[in-house]
Amino acid sequence: MPIYAEIITIGDEILYGQTLDTNSHWMSAELDQIGIKVIRKTTIGDRRSEILTSFKEAESRADIILITGGLGPTSDDLTKPLLAEYFNSKLILNEEALAEIEALFKRVNRKMSDANRGQAMLPAACQKVTNRYGTAPGMWFERNSKVFIAMPGVPYEMKHMMADILIPRLAEKYVDGVIHHRMIKTIGIPESTLADLINDWEMALPTHIKLAYLPSFGQVKLRLTAFGSDIAVLQKESQALIDAVIPTIDKYVFGYDNDEIEYVIGQKLIQSKKTLAFAESCTGGYLSHLITKVPGSSAYFKGSIISYAYDVKERSLDVNHEMMNEMGAVSEEVVVQMAKAVREKLQSDVGISISGIAGPDGGTEDKPVGTVWIAYSDKDKTVAKKYQFTKDRILNIQFAATTALNMFRINFLSE
Amino acid sequence: MPIYAEIITIGDEILYGQTLDTNSHWMSAELDQIGIKVIRKTTIGDRRSEILTSFKEAESRADIILITGGLGPTSDDLTKPLLAEYFNSKLILNEEALAEIEALFKRVNRKMSDANRGQAMLPAACQKVTNRYGTAPGMWFERNSKVFIAMPGVPYEMKHMMADILIPRLAEKYVDGVIHHRMIKTIGIPESTLADLINDWEMALPTHIKLAYLPSFGQVKLRLTAFGSDIAVLQKESQALIDAVIPTIDKYVFGYDNDEIEYVIGQKLIQSKKTLAFAESCTGGYLSHLITKVPGSSAYFKGSIISYAYDVKERSLDVNHEMMNEMGAVSEEVVVQMAKAVREKLQSDVGISISGIAGPDGGTEDKPVGTVWIAYSDKDKTVAKKYQFTKDRILNIQFAATTALNMFRINFLSE
Repeated sequence: MPIYAEIITIGDEILYGQTLDTNSHWMSAELDQIGIKVIRKTTIGDRRSEILTSFKEAESRADIILITGGLGPTSDDLTKPLLAEYFNSKLILNEEALAEIEALFKRVNRKMSDANRGQAMLPAACQKVTNRYGTAPGMWFERNSKVFIAMPGVPYEMKHMMADILIPRLAEKYVDGVIHHRMIKTIGIPESTLADLINDWEMALPTHIKLAYLPSFGQVKLRLTAFGSDIAVLQKESQALIDAVIPTIDKYVFGYDNDEIEYVIGQKLIQSKKTLAFAESCTGGYLSHLITKVPGSSAYFKGSIISYAYDVKERSLDVNHEMMNEMGAVSEEVVVQMAKAVREKLQSDVGISISGIAGPDGGTEDKPVGTVWIAYSDKDKTVAKKYQFTKDRILNIQFAATTALNMFRINFLSE
Repeated sequence: MPIYAEIITIGDEILYGQTLDTNSHWMSAELDQIGIKVIRKTTIGDRRSEILTSFKEAESRADIILITGGLGPTSDDLTKPLLAEYFNSKLILNEEALAEIEALFKRVNRKMSDANRGQAMLPAACQKVTNRYGTAPGMWFERNSKVFIAMPGVPYEMKHMMADILIPRLAEKYVDGVIHHRMIKTIGIPESTLADLINDWEMALPTHIKLAYLPSFGQVKLRLTAFGSDIAVLQKESQALIDAVIPTIDKYVFGYDNDEIEYVIGQKLIQSKKTLAFAESCTGGYLSHLITKVPGSSAYFKGSIISYAYDVKERSLDVNHEMMNEMGAVSEEVVVQMAKAVREKLQSDVGISISGIAGPDGGTEDKPVGTVWIAYSDKDKTVAKKYQFTKDRILNIQFAATTALNMFRINFLSE
């Protein structure tokens, strides 16, 4: 029988859009790893009745209720007194918690306030969960085979508490059925076209294996989720399904599971001992940023010339003045020259160039906003292609950069 | 009477921790701007009974129910048929939606699939909401003075739909008391130091005007929210409060309301008819990306040399080989040379350079991960400064770029 969890996040700052809730995302992924299914996430404010109602509702649906937030030392922190009330329990001094809080203050050489001392008062009904990185202990309640767990909202305190203590304890107590996820990552094909291509395969999936399409800028992830009792069986079944569908879509697949396109490209460059450089115009550094986000990218990334101005294209990338006047900066001739020149100037094996009209201004009838030329150049070949993206500046920058990465993937070592 | 909203996010990928939900965060902030209070956010999976139950529960508590996700063209997208069921309504072809989807495909020169054509089938009970950036139309339902709004989960599609169409419509329908927001934007001062500086002023704020601190990478926004019945009065009161606090903090203030530091810098350059170029090492293009996100930046941004490799620093920025060996690439001498050289090579009035250790590797005892040198150079002066940021690669890139922008603000035209 599957084990269900719900996550309750408490805090006005999240409801009002001042703090982005990344905690519940992280918790979901951790629970998923041990096969516990999160069936609902709820965010509510710092108000008594809403908090108590949400406890009751969650208890009626889930086996495990995880609560974050509202454990601070100030008066707007309601989670602890309301959990005490919900479990008909009094707040009493937990000596061990007090010792831990005192040790924490000693370690950072700070004075402990009465408010902090008050954080060692816990409902008698709960087991304390040690918070190694902060002053608010976690709490573990059990009643009628349901578990309530309260954690602080500070991300690193919560993460350590959960990873070090709670996940192992939950795994031991609950896990017998298993869930297995696999991800196929595609680029350069729209969701609907991909769905058409794999329709027959999708329709024939067994009922215990579900498929989801997860699109983002120029990429679509296909997620297979398998439910069962034996992880080895699920792994084998999922792999067989992946092997069956890959021939239909292999030219769009750049990786699996946690692979990212920037990382995959870096690995290819490392394996082949080649280096990369960019000549960016309309993307203005965004493509370089994607590549240099990856730790260790200095091993294969030489650098870029961002030639935003006409005269920089001429001076730093040897683009011919007359050619640019005649064909325009957004043209096949110019991107080809940019890609070749950056290879030579930065002495890289591969050069990629982008020139386009990001908008909102600068469009013409011939070349509307969203027109982008991209070129790939290595010692054996140079290819250039024209794309038509959107009317939105930021989207055009993102689509152009993703498409340039895909152009590398398609052309690099393709012979 | 306050107007309450709930946000329902539909998608297994969010429950399982594969996609971080940033939509509901953004939506909350937008609704807050027009005085609509979000009282609960719920995330549920792609399952019929849970979706229908969540509709009913939200309707019992809130005036406005905003739903994102599950509107795609594939079979796991349940939101539209379930909304039709919930409103006892049939799916019929919406001619206007079809025309919009066709126009979208025509614009990007792609073939439309049957699945996409199916997206023009909408519940008869709803009003279509135009999606200018994608194929899934939004839907607006009204019944018993409650409004249900369904939007696609793709962030940019949702944001355009909400900002351009839904927020104005909701404001017109619901907002009667008035709320007035003002924002003071600071850079280069930590939140706690800022709070100490303005403590007296903050304590004296009238009860109908609220202050919030909104920190992000190297910046802190101070938001004043005034509640009342006469917008002109609130505007005057807010302005008087701003005028009173500015003398205390003016050297950290770069703008107000929707001002962004990148934009403010661009305006200064336009006014003074000066141009800018960057030499980036550890930020790898991110600084250039921030500047070129701004529409019209080609008027003052010449370009950049991203000198990630040692030999690119030497070849493209004339950094002396022996100097780099002796002092290291992350040194005052090297950033000063980079800033001067990029001014000369790209013929800009101002050059800014960054060289640092982003991590996770490359740190030493002398220069741990997070050590970053930044230099500013114009015809009258060159200044360089060393910073120590964090252990996290992405944070270091963001802090270094923001700090470089602040260095420009402080030094440009300061005489």
